[in-house]
Amino acid sequence: MHRTHNCGELRREHAGQTVTLAGWVNSYREQGKELVFVDLRDRYGKTQVTFITEEGSKIDSIARKLRREDVIKVVGEVRYRGEALVNSKLQTGDIELRAIQLTVLSRSKTPPFEIEGGELPNEELRLKYRFVDLRRPELQKSIILRHNLVQAVREYFNTRDFLEIETPMLGRSTPEGARDYLVPSRVHHGSFYALPQSPQIYKQILMVAGYDRYYQIARCFRDEDLRADRQPEFTQIDVEMAFVERDDILNTIDGLVSFVMQKVRGVTMQTPLPRYTYADVMERFGCDKPDVRFAMEIVDIGDIAAASGFGVFKAVTASGGRVRGLNVKGAAEKYSRRLLDVDLKNFVGDFGAKGLAYMKVTGGKLESTIAKFFTDDHQQQIIARMGGEEGDLLLFVADTPKVTNAALAALRNRLGKELNLYDPSEFKCIWVLDFPLLTWNAEEGRFDAEHHPFCQPNPEDAEYLKTDPGKVRADSYDLVVNGYEAASGSVRIHDSEIQQMVFDLLNIKSEEAERRFGFLLEALRYGAPPHAGIALGLDRWVMLLAGDENIRDVIAFPKTQKAADMLTGAPAPVDDRQLKDLHIEVAELPKK
Amino acid sequence: MHRTHNCGELRREHAGQTVTLAGWVNSYREQGKELVFVDLRDRYGKTQVTFITEEGSKIDSIARKLRREDVIKVVGEVRYRGEALVNSKLQTGDIELRAIQLTVLSRSKTPPFEIEGGELPNEELRLKYRFVDLRRPELQKSIILRHNLVQAVREYFNTRDFLEIETPMLGRSTPEGARDYLVPSRVHHGSFYALPQSPQIYKQILMVAGYDRYYQIARCFRDEDLRADRQPEFTQIDVEMAFVERDDILNTIDGLVSFVMQKVRGVTMQTPLPRYTYADVMERFGCDKPDVRFAMEIVDIGDIAAASGFGVFKAVTASGGRVRGLNVKGAAEKYSRRLLDVDLKNFVGDFGAKGLAYMKVTGGKLESTIAKFFTDDHQQQIIARMGGEEGDLLLFVADTPKVTNAALAALRNRLGKELNLYDPSEFKCIWVLDFPLLTWNAEEGRFDAEHHPFCQPNPEDAEYLKTDPGKVRADSYDLVVNGYEAASGSVRIHDSEIQQMVFDLLNIKSEEAERRFGFLLEALRYGAPPHAGIALGLDRWVMLLAGDENIRDVIAFPKTQKAADMLTGAPAPVDDRQLKDLHIEVAELPKK
Repeated sequence: MHRTHNCGELRREHAGQTVTLAGWVNSYREQGKELVFVDLRDRYGKTQVTFITEEGSKIDSIARKLRREDVIKVVGEVRYRGEALVNSKLQTGDIELRAIQLTVLSRSKTPPFEIEGGELPNEELRLKYRFVDLRRPELQKSIILRHNLVQAVREYFNTRDFLEIETPMLGRSTPEGARDYLVPSRVHHGSFYALPQSPQIYKQILMVAGYDRYYQIARCFRDEDLRADRQPEFTQIDVEMAFVERDDILNTIDGLVSFVMQKVRGVTMQTPLPRYTYADVMERFGCDKPDVRFAMEIVDIGDIAAASGFGVFKAVTASGGRVRGLNVKGAAEKYSRRLLDVDLKNFVGDFGAKGLAYMKVTGGKLESTIAKFFTDDHQQQIIARMGGEEGDLLLFVADTPKVTNAALAALRNRLGKELNLYDPSEFKCIWVLDFPLLTWNAEEGRFDAEHHPFCQPNPEDAEYLKTDPGKVRADSYDLVVNGYEAASGSVRIHDSEIQQMVFDLLNIKSEEAERRFGFLLEALRYGAPPHAGIALGLDRWVMLLAGDENIRDVIAFPKTQKAADMLTGAPAPVDDRQLKDLHIEVAELPKK
Repeated sequence: MHRTHNCGELRREHAGQTVTLAGWVNSYREQGKELVFVDLRDRYGKTQVTFITEEGSKIDSIARKLRREDVIKVVGEVRYRGEALVNSKLQTGDIELRAIQLTVLSRSKTPPFEIEGGELPNEELRLKYRFVDLRRPELQKSIILRHNLVQAVREYFNTRDFLEIETPMLGRSTPEGARDYLVPSRVHHGSFYALPQSPQIYKQILMVAGYDRYYQIARCFRDEDLRADRQPEFTQIDVEMAFVERDDILNTIDGLVSFVMQKVRGVTMQTPLPRYTYADVMERFGCDKPDVRFAMEIVDIGDIAAASGFGVFKAVTASGGRVRGLNVKGAAEKYSRRLLDVDLKNFVGDFGAKGLAYMKVTGGKLESTIAKFFTDDHQQQIIARMGGEEGDLLLFVADTPKVTNAALAALRNRLGKELNLYDPSEFKCIWVLDFPLLTWNAEEGRFDAEHHPFCQPNPEDAEYLKTDPGKVRADSYDLVVNGYEAASGSVRIHDSEIQQMVFDLLNIKSEEAERRFGFLLEALRYGAPPHAGIALGLDRWVMLLAGDENIRDVIAFPKTQKAADMLTGAPAPVDDRQLKDLHIEVAELPKK
């Protein structure tokens, strides 16, 4: 071992001992001709190493050539600094290491950016020099947090009879095939494996096979056009249980969240976590993943609007649209007319809203260019409905239900953030239940599965399955944290006939269903227990817990938004011989 | 929850309680018109459920329609069976569940083979019906053992400052590229990712990045022609440490093995595990992964053979060959002349040996058709050298060094097994050290890396790097368990110049090295600590610990020897549209 202690370990009680440290030269400074100070760094901390010059000594001449990020090994004596010289910023600030022997293990070129402090370069350069970037304390903290989080998750499940079971990476292409990463087979000409978008079917098979409590920290893949917070490969905490009902999963995950928060953050969570229905959050927050760290709920004034003299509102309600608004507490003076008429209006416009109406509560009445269209009585009704008080700003969108949802949800999130309506370090988790089973795909003229095709229809809605499928709720649930979908799951279908019926609704023909899911349908015919499960996005959880805003900062070797690895240069062209072995050819690029 | 207890949990102290169990109908029998007995099974155990007929009762009519593997839920009263009726074969044998209410959760078709007992069908059928196969107690035991083993491994590393860090699956094709699974990129036309054969380079980068103790239970991929105990995707326990030397890795893994054996098997291992050099095991056992559960070492009699009157032996030694043998203790009467002349001779013939000479120790002399070519003195020398005693069988192969190694190693393994020279449940681990750095590839006229191109040359052999590279030992090590390679690792090169020199020796041109490993060479220039690592084959370890002989029995969803998944039918053809999106085409099969 090239060290006896690490750089975060030495304390006053080690004084007098001869020890060996090894690490990176974090900083270097000379004091006159006599002294050279080096802060030596490893992932455990930093220790000050002091070299005292003796004319002509070898150690001195080596020490004077040290540069940042060189890797060295120092044998030295631990010295107490004395009260006056204690450095309270360092864990090891009580002591210094008086160097006796110095070995340079490895030299470093000048790093392309600073490890501590300094301005960060563009992300591409950071990713290319990831071996330098990963030395930065912020990234190190996230990587260590990730480790601790994962181990806490495992501890929770391991002590509750769950088995961690690995499922294949080389699987079969599924109906969401368009987003599959494919792997050509060398042995089977013209055939392909698909990398899993989730271990969904395998974990259901495990339930049929009797392994009634399964989890896995599973790598999954999705070849989609990448958004800022998505990665082509991502990790999910994958869970499935048999002989359970919906609430058993919710309770299990409530327990997991509270266990993990306690372990990793020392925070006690109130459980059960609040449960909302999909219908409820859509009405109150306009979206299925509301940030409930602040209130500012959406309020419907459609009835008042319809009775008012304001033509725009009346027309919207008459055509089946809705008039809904937000009360931005005490913000009447915070937004200028220009901000309201241009900035916020354009903002909601991006979500399809044709306009943004605003009124200020002043002297117990509404002040607005449109106030004149509302009688005193209607004004009082609006103020009462919105909970308006002196100085509040009321904002309204009148549009289709879909547009009012989208525009007001986005507006609410924006205002919550820019008005600092919540503590960004707070952590608010809620359940959203009873999603619709199906969503109508107008383009293809058929229903799509809202969650996936294996989701159990809510038994209470069984009657609508044949008469009005769009009305059927799923036995499904999302866990929403600070406005992010942090987990998603459902009770699964365990009856092959119901499964076949759902495939029919999704217009997956029996032949196709048989070809793609035949083995699942068959499995359901050999004694399938009721089962349910959930998957939690690990990267997202680490990001939320670390307070990071960039998902690439919680992954050791992430890919760019163009799915490229800047470090290794993947993906890259390969030898023709490799392609020949795999029986594939690269197609010509279509001419533009 | 569809149950209050599991099927392995109820004991006499539960008598009188009303409980709910759920599980699979393991067996069913009627006793006259009054009684129906069902053994209900889940992964925790079995419980006998008793249905008492009451004419016309609904529960009775349902119970009489139960069939094996139906999934049911039973509410019932726990009854103590009484001393005379206790079934000591069941953990729950003290009690029975007197059914009050029965719900059929799911029906099962007749399973294609028995869950317990019964003759096993061919493996293809088992893999197709994996959801049935996985219910068999043998497979369940292995899957649970695998879980326990993995958690013990994590516990060991987690409590020793190691961090579990995930490395990418979508990486870059490496020099062993011919065995890479490739993944076409949709975004980057004509470019490909490669699935990792190991996280080797990433873990080295992590060391450069300062994460000095890393582990990962990592899925790896290798597209090779499959042998019985290999899988296209496999799992390795991947470990890397910085600021360490070889012995630190050996000690760490000694600790791991002994911790895991204690946890999983309750066995105390003697550590340090015995350490052999490569040169030593090749001489004594003829191979680099000897099974040391039994002795029967290879003995060289080349000098005696050269001095003897036996022309065959003399010719071999004269041409630089070797004459070496095994003493099969007390086996003189166990092998007939026919077995020796035909069976064993053909056996060593498969390893290139032109013949097998044999002598029996009888009356203090050698008895053999070739004994006459050896003087009494030479006979006594051979007996002494071989440790021969009355009734021993001495077997000799005279051939090139390579052939005597291969033939005698295989013969030794065969004899050890067929003569029951060891306890098959025993567990003997040894280290093999100091492998050659390079092996000569005569076909391509260059050296290949014995382990991989990042392996540190043994500093003692530095002088040969330029003069006689074939002589250079690597700072590498294998852990061998019962004749299997169970782990393999090395000290890595942490100096970019030495790395470049090794690339040169391997005839990897600088341009190619730069293209393929440029980022590693670059990383080594930014402060790389000395580091070393190892990877343990998880599937192999589970197999050894479970006493399985088939690696597919320790993997939940394995692939066949043709890399096919019999359950899902992967790999399979995909839609043309998918291929078009990926810019690839399937090549025509070459005409035969």
